[in-house]
Amino acid sequence: MKAKHPKRIAVLGSTGSIGKNTLKIAAMYPDKFKVLSIAARSSINLLEAQIRAFKPKVAAVFDEEAAKKLRKKNLCVEILSGNEGVIRAATLKDADMVVSAIVGSAGLMPTFEAIRAGKDIALATKEALVMAGEIVMAEARKKGVKIIPVDSEHSAIFQCINGRDTEEIQKIILTASGGAFLRKDVSELKKVTPEDALKHPNWSMGRKITIDSATLMNKGLEVIEAHYLFNLPLKKIDVVIHPQSIVHSMVEFVDGSILAQMSEPDMRGPICYALSYPARLKKVLKPLRMPEIKELTFEKPDIKKFPCLGLAYDALREGGTMPAVLNAANEVAVEAFLNKRIPFTKVYYVVARLMEKHRPLKYGSINEVIEISNLAKVKAEEIVRSC
Amino acid sequence: MKAKHPKRIAVLGSTGSIGKNTLKIAAMYPDKFKVLSIAARSSINLLEAQIRAFKPKVAAVFDEEAAKKLRKKNLCVEILSGNEGVIRAATLKDADMVVSAIVGSAGLMPTFEAIRAGKDIALATKEALVMAGEIVMAEARKKGVKIIPVDSEHSAIFQCINGRDTEEIQKIILTASGGAFLRKDVSELKKVTPEDALKHPNWSMGRKITIDSATLMNKGLEVIEAHYLFNLPLKKIDVVIHPQSIVHSMVEFVDGSILAQMSEPDMRGPICYALSYPARLKKVLKPLRMPEIKELTFEKPDIKKFPCLGLAYDALREGGTMPAVLNAANEVAVEAFLNKRIPFTKVYYVVARLMEKHRPLKYGSINEVIEISNLAKVKAEEIVRSC
Repeated sequence: MKAKHPKRIAVLGSTGSIGKNTLKIAAMYPDKFKVLSIAARSSINLLEAQIRAFKPKVAAVFDEEAAKKLRKKNLCVEILSGNEGVIRAATLKDADMVVSAIVGSAGLMPTFEAIRAGKDIALATKEALVMAGEIVMAEARKKGVKIIPVDSEHSAIFQCINGRDTEEIQKIILTASGGAFLRKDVSELKKVTPEDALKHPNWSMGRKITIDSATLMNKGLEVIEAHYLFNLPLKKIDVVIHPQSIVHSMVEFVDGSILAQMSEPDMRGPICYALSYPARLKKVLKPLRMPEIKELTFEKPDIKKFPCLGLAYDALREGGTMPAVLNAANEVAVEAFLNKRIPFTKVYYVVARLMEKHRPLKYGSINEVIEISNLAKVKAEEIVRSC
Repeated sequence: MKAKHPKRIAVLGSTGSIGKNTLKIAAMYPDKFKVLSIAARSSINLLEAQIRAFKPKVAAVFDEEAAKKLRKKNLCVEILSGNEGVIRAATLKDADMVVSAIVGSAGLMPTFEAIRAGKDIALATKEALVMAGEIVMAEARKKGVKIIPVDSEHSAIFQCINGRDTEEIQKIILTASGGAFLRKDVSELKKVTPEDALKHPNWSMGRKITIDSATLMNKGLEVIEAHYLFNLPLKKIDVVIHPQSIVHSMVEFVDGSILAQMSEPDMRGPICYALSYPARLKKVLKPLRMPEIKELTFEKPDIKKFPCLGLAYDALREGGTMPAVLNAANEVAVEAFLNKRIPFTKVYYVVARLMEKHRPLKYGSINEVIEISNLAKVKAEEIVRSC
C-alpha cells in the first residue's frame, strides 16, 4: 500500500487505555499517522496534554462542564462538546480512519456516524456491534468502509482469515484468559472485591473490561461482536479458556486445519495492525521466543461458575434488542460492583433479571436501540437498588 | 474455484506412504480427482492393486525387471519402465498436477521434468529442492507452475503466509517432534536399533523419513527446502522442538505477530490441501478439540545431541553442490543404519566425513547435480565400509 500522506486518524476515547496506546503508536510513527481529532468523556487534564502533544485540528469533550473548563485554557484547537461534538470529531472530512475506542454504549452513535461518513473504522468499542450489529454492518457494507477489529481476539481471527471466504470457515475459537478468578472456587466469588477483580493476570486494560474479563461477560460480548463482524452463526463460534493469553484466537477451516494467531499480550499489536492494515509496521511487539514459553494450555469455560457467558449466548439467540439490553444491564451492574454497591456475583443477577423482563424487539434505527439501552439502564439501576 | 473436470493427477511414488495416502484421498473424492498415472520403484504387487483400483492411463515402474513381471499380468494399462518411463508418467499431456512423492534423490529428475512440462506440483520429495533448489525454483517461476508443499511443516507455513508478501515475514519457525530419541541421553544413542528409531511418537511415515526424524536430519533438509520454497535466507528460518506435533509450523511477521497452523498429525491434511489448493475439502482431518489438548510445549533443539541438523545448516551456508552431497551421504548412511551395517551415531559421521572432503561447486544443470549426487553416494558407501 502506498499512502501518499500519513493516514489521518480520529481517536474517539483518546484518554482510555486503547486511546492512549493509539496515540503512543501515532507518536512512534509520525510519518505514518497524523492525529486529526481526539475525543474524550471528561478527563480534560490528560486531553489537554494530548492536545499539546498531537496538535489535532479538533478536540471534543462529551461532558459540557468539562468542555467549558478546557476552553478556558485557550489551546490552539477547536474544542467541541456534547454528543454532537464527539460526532463531529468522528466525521471530519479529511479523516481516513476513525479509532472507535469509547468505552461502552456511548460509543455506538459516534461509530455509526463515522461509518455513515464513509470512514474506515478501527473498532475497539465492541458495543457498536453488540448493541446494533445488523444496522452497523449493513451501513458499513453500503458505504464500503472497512471495519478492522482492535480487540485482540477479533484481530487474531481477522489475521487468520486474511480475506478467505467465509464458506471455508468451520468455526472460530475465541480464547479467554479466564480473568482474575479462573482458579477461585465458586463459593469464594461472593466475597471478591473490585480490587481483586482488577488484577488481570495478563492484560493491562481499562476497569470496565477487566471486570468483564473476570465475569467472562467480556467473552460473551466478544461472541456477539464476532457473530456480526465475521457473519458467522453462534454455532460456529467457540470459546476456550487459555490462561497464558499467548494464542489470541483461532480459526478452524472446513478441512480441520486450524490457524492461530499468537503474540505477547500487548494491545499495541492489534491497534497497530488495525491502523496500518493491510501493511504491517515493523517491530511493534516484543517477539515471542517459543522455547521460553513453558506451555500453552486450553480448557473448557465453566459456564456454571461464570454464568454471564451463558447470558450472552442467550441474548444472541433471542436477538433483536436483547443484546443491547444485556449490554446496558451489564454496564450498570459492573459500575455498581466497582462502586461496591453490589457483590461480584450480583452482576450476573442484575443482567439475568433484566433480560427475563425484556421482550426482545426488532429495531429499525440506531436511535431506537439507544433508547432501549437507556431505558434498560434505568431499570437495571432499579434492580441494583433492590439488591 | 470451479474445476470444469476432476483434477487429473499423476502420482509419483504411489506405493510409498504419501502416495498411498494420495490415492486414498483420490478414492474419497472421485468427483474432484482423476488418477491419470502412477509410478513406483519396484513394489509391483501394490502397484497392480492400484492399477486395478484407479485405472490410470499409464503406470511406470522404475525397476526394469519388476516392470517386465508386471507386464506379464496383462493389465489394461500402458506399463512404462526405467527413468524414462517415470518421466513420461510425470509429464502426460492431460495431467493438471503431479504429486511428487518419490523417496530420495530419485525424485529429482521426474519432478524437474514435470515442472518443465508446466505441471503444478504437490511436492513431497523435498530432495528436489534440497539438491537443486535454485534451478528447480527458477524453472517453476519460468513456467508459472505452482509448487505446493506436502511436508506438513511447509504446508503449515504456506497456509500461514497465504499469499502475503515475503517482505512481511520476519522469520518462519519449523516445528520438529524431536523424533524417537528426544528424551534419550546422548550416551544411549550409540546402541539404539533401527526398530527403536522407527517408533515415531506422532507421525506414521516411511522408513527413511522416520530415521531422518530421529537424527533431526529431516528438519535440516526441511530448512534447506524452506529456504528455496519461500525464498528466505537461513537467518530467517528457525527450528523449535514441539513434542506434541500439533503446531505444524509458524510464521512470525515483522510486527511480532505469529501465525501458527495446527491439526492432528495426519498427512492427509497437507496432501489434501496441496491437491485442492486454493480450495479446501471438507472434513479431511479429525478436528482438534482444544480443551482435550493437555499442553503445547516448545524447546530449543539440542544440536550437540543431534548434530545432523547443524550439518544441514553448514551445507546451506556453503551452498552450490554441498546440500546435494549432504543428502546423498545421508541416504547411504540411513540405508546402512537400517541394514544394521552402522550404528545410529555413525549416520552423522558418514555425512560429516563426506562433506569435509567435498569442495562445493556451482552447478548449471540437473544432470550435473545428479552426477555429483551419484558420485557422493559411492564415496559415502566407502566411508560406511570403513566404519
